[in-house]
Amino acid sequence: MAKIAIMGCGVVGGGTADLLTENRERIKESCGEYLDLKYVLDVRDLPDSPYRDLIVHDVAAIENDPEVTVVAETIGGVRHAYDYTVRLLKAGKSVVSSNKQLVSEHGAELLALAREHGCRYLFEASTGGGIPVIGPLSHDLSQNEILEISGILNGTTNYILTRMKGGGVGFETALSEAQEKGYAERDPSADVEGTDACRKIAILAATAFGKLIAPSRIHTEGITAIRQSDVAAAASVGAAVKLLGRAIRRGGECFVLVSPFFVFADCPLSHVDGVYNAVSVTGNYVGDVMFYGRGAGAKATASAVVADLVEAATGKGATPVWETADESFPTAFGSFVCPRYLSFSGVDRNAVRVVFGDVEFIRGAEGEIAFLTPAQSELECADAIARLSHGGGQLLSMIRVYESGERPEA
Amino acid sequence: MAKIAIMGCGVVGGGTADLLTENRERIKESCGEYLDLKYVLDVRDLPDSPYRDLIVHDVAAIENDPEVTVVAETIGGVRHAYDYTVRLLKAGKSVVSSNKQLVSEHGAELLALAREHGCRYLFEASTGGGIPVIGPLSHDLSQNEILEISGILNGTTNYILTRMKGGGVGFETALSEAQEKGYAERDPSADVEGTDACRKIAILAATAFGKLIAPSRIHTEGITAIRQSDVAAAASVGAAVKLLGRAIRRGGECFVLVSPFFVFADCPLSHVDGVYNAVSVTGNYVGDVMFYGRGAGAKATASAVVADLVEAATGKGATPVWETADESFPTAFGSFVCPRYLSFSGVDRNAVRVVFGDVEFIRGAEGEIAFLTPAQSELECADAIARLSHGGGQLLSMIRVYESGERPEA
Repeated sequence: MAKIAIMGCGVVGGGTADLLTENRERIKESCGEYLDLKYVLDVRDLPDSPYRDLIVHDVAAIENDPEVTVVAETIGGVRHAYDYTVRLLKAGKSVVSSNKQLVSEHGAELLALAREHGCRYLFEASTGGGIPVIGPLSHDLSQNEILEISGILNGTTNYILTRMKGGGVGFETALSEAQEKGYAERDPSADVEGTDACRKIAILAATAFGKLIAPSRIHTEGITAIRQSDVAAAASVGAAVKLLGRAIRRGGECFVLVSPFFVFADCPLSHVDGVYNAVSVTGNYVGDVMFYGRGAGAKATASAVVADLVEAATGKGATPVWETADESFPTAFGSFVCPRYLSFSGVDRNAVRVVFGDVEFIRGAEGEIAFLTPAQSELECADAIARLSHGGGQLLSMIRVYESGERPEA
Repeated sequence: MAKIAIMGCGVVGGGTADLLTENRERIKESCGEYLDLKYVLDVRDLPDSPYRDLIVHDVAAIENDPEVTVVAETIGGVRHAYDYTVRLLKAGKSVVSSNKQLVSEHGAELLALAREHGCRYLFEASTGGGIPVIGPLSHDLSQNEILEISGILNGTTNYILTRMKGGGVGFETALSEAQEKGYAERDPSADVEGTDACRKIAILAATAFGKLIAPSRIHTEGITAIRQSDVAAAASVGAAVKLLGRAIRRGGECFVLVSPFFVFADCPLSHVDGVYNAVSVTGNYVGDVMFYGRGAGAKATASAVVADLVEAATGKGATPVWETADESFPTAFGSFVCPRYLSFSGVDRNAVRVVFGDVEFIRGAEGEIAFLTPAQSELECADAIARLSHGGGQLLSMIRVYESGERPEA
């Protein structure tokens, strides 16, 4: 009988403990033995918790107990979670994590420790809540060269953008609604500024390409600058504005970024609404596949943590090798090529054509001139914007346009 | 070094052999050892094949070679595939299959043999080509009680229905187009009559519920009776007609069926177009998740076969238990409750209201009266149809309406 410990008895950790209890027999069926919860590490005593008798305050109790072979880390943040995870892996205990910050910042080192000490480090729950993504990438799609991962990785921002489109409201109103419904935190910055999506795309890119890029090195834009008129302009050409995390390999180049995109209706990502998330993966054999679902929620995330606990307790799977990316990876963002939506005031169509060439003018806000550019690099686009600004134009919006490879033919 | 054999060197088998060669180093990385192809079983000599030196005609060569531990079965059909699979499993060799007919008819027995002889029987490639579905259901979602699986499981019929909607053409024309493009076979009956989708939902239902229902016992309707006017009527209310395989558990009842459905635009399945497939899974913790991609293709399917070969060569996962369903499972189809689209000639709105109650009249074909019924059981609906026919009405179309649980809120 394997003994389990949980570190951090918050929403996900408590949900994990509940699920271990609730699914006791189902777990025995999956892995041939019971997984018994022996310790719950928390700074609090939690006298009202059903797990109060299992509470310990010092990780050493877990570290030094040879009966405990698998530990769930649901603390969040880096400080304690990093220290404890290192100690447990060095003690040969497998660790299962729902902590996207820790995995995105220290995953390479923690996987190396797991390999060195013959244990596992698993983190399906760190990305996409209960949606299976890391597992399918690591197993079912393992025979594919991954060419691209593009995903709606944050439910809060997707709810806000969906409301801005469907409800015709501005960013601030949509954000307030999201806060009222409990979809956004009181301090929403990690969501609306793209930090959360950035950590997740760092993890997905490392899973696909084997190189972990420090989140601080990933070009990240949030949605705070998106205006209702931009969302309406997108809708006028059959597109939705979506905040995408993208990891793209094209020939020798590799780009990783988080940014809002126009996504056209023929792409399934454009129909992913509300708090739902979706991850689209392009493999060289399988073509495009997409995984869709709620990307958060205590029960969904706990179900992914417990599935990983079962895997760690029984599986003999190989632990992947992640290198820490150096300056040469990814490719400098200035070379990233895509079409863009731009909206200016203070210029006429002629001036736009002189600078941007063959653009498609679309319906923008009153007093503005809005258009879609041909595909060009970030540097080319910045140069063109500077020239138009020099001629008296004022840039009001710039949103990239998503071009995916395959399209359903019909 | 594990030795591999492939049985059946057709499109998928040949693709599997190619991929084993092409991904030789990647496979070593995934499973720590090379997987060397030692035999290719085929009735032909294949003198022009790169694998001609590996060809054997008698399964005994594989069965009696202790070096071979894992075998891919890509023969298709039941006759030889069943016999060979039984012999190999009894010899303690793991078998990986892309054969949906064999798995849907004999999966329970073959899994039991694998358990008994300490080997594996894996079949990710039998359902959804390269789209990961069986793996995520068995691992990542293993902690969920599965409440429903509903999927677009056949690319040929989805292409035809997409063309009938987008191109405004009838069934026969759309079928001819699909045949010209190579999306439909010259004899399309297994696709258009629902047989292919029926086998796949049998496999998915067994994976979710642990009971294998003989495909002949699954209520199966194809799309040959769908008229362009039905597709247009669906579009007029914001729905698409989709052929769905469904396995549903509601309280003590369980329904498994294949049938066309009206699917409304707020459900992601409605946006799955062309030859693409998608499987929506509802779990009690994870809520709705969906897996999307091309459901066929030699390379995609081969990539799933090779991923399973790697899993069989290295994994220690538990082999699931499938019972063979008896008469009590699933619930008698007459109790299946859903709203329906009906189109009649020879009756007026009043007569419809008298028999069906509070219906929603919608735009149907010239000279017909089309409407959506409230939710009622198959038996109730058949009774109402009989009463309306008795009053002079002629039923021209009946298509069920898909009601899923969750909807993205916004």
